[in-house]
Amino acid sequence: ARPRVGYFFTGKTGSELLTEKLKKFKVKEYQSIPIVVEEDVSAYDAICTMFLEDVGTLFVTNEHGHLVGVLSRKDLLRASIGNQDLSSIPVHIIMTRMPNITICKPEDLLLDAAQKLIEKQIDGLPVVEPAENGLEVIGRLTKTNITKALVELGRDQHL
Amino acid sequence: ARPRVGYFFTGKTGSELLTEKLKKFKVKEYQSIPIVVEEDVSAYDAICTMFLEDVGTLFVTNEHGHLVGVLSRKDLLRASIGNQDLSSIPVHIIMTRMPNITICKPEDLLLDAAQKLIEKQIDGLPVVEPAENGLEVIGRLTKTNITKALVELGRDQHL
Repeated sequence: ARPRVGYFFTGKTGSELLTEKLKKFKVKEYQSIPIVVEEDVSAYDAICTMFLEDVGTLFVTNEHGHLVGVLSRKDLLRASIGNQDLSSIPVHIIMTRMPNITICKPEDLLLDAAQKLIEKQIDGLPVVEPAENGLEVIGRLTKTNITKALVELGRDQHL
Repeated sequence: ARPRVGYFFTGKTGSELLTEKLKKFKVKEYQSIPIVVEEDVSAYDAICTMFLEDVGTLFVTNEHGHLVGVLSRKDLLRASIGNQDLSSIPVHIIMTRMPNITICKPEDLLLDAAQKLIEKQIDGLPVVEPAENGLEVIGRLTKTNITKALVELGRDQHL
């Protein structure tokens, strides 16, 4: 459509697009690679994996590769002040387990995933896809990803 | 100023305001209360404080109440897989210490603080104010605060 006669271009199109963008951000555009351990791995080995992979959340899978648990730094710290030897505690004892895990899907809105992180007071969500008799973990969405999204949103606008 | 004749109101003022808002968000509007421990407290007690206060970052102060270090869950997890007893390690051994601490100020832009969190790969920043011969910690800014800011930004727009 042609603009009306006398239409005054405000130069704010960028801002409008920015808002549209925020509304449309999807999890799959911001997710990171998931780091996975098996359920019989020790808490000690899980902590080592966190340091090697430099992540704060691990996902735990069963022998079929399906999601059975989530392990946070908090879960591992709690275990570390217990009286047991960390190398003798398997992660399935200390993880948050299905069905108490909050998940998200690649097509979910980033804003909805951010809301879940806040409401559930957790650091990261597994990004999952349905598999036969379970869920396959295909990504990891954390507060770091959300923070990066905000920074990008700001940078785009040449603040 | 009166609008030009034929000015066409696009109804996008809300979006423009949103962008303006993001540009102007300040650290002091989003910061949380800082949780502080003294430098001779044990790693074990620091972990307990983290759980009691439900935070992921502690700030360490000296006898004058000045900032001397930052303790993350990562620092404490690293200590927990060492061979020493956690209750015999004082936090000043394992903390990140001044001047290697990344700080922010209450008047800083939230976007700049978010950028620091990403660049330095840390979970939280102390919000500080200059004191006599040191820095006083007056707040805590984490990726949780940033995530909340993004969610609010979305909610304001009735997405």
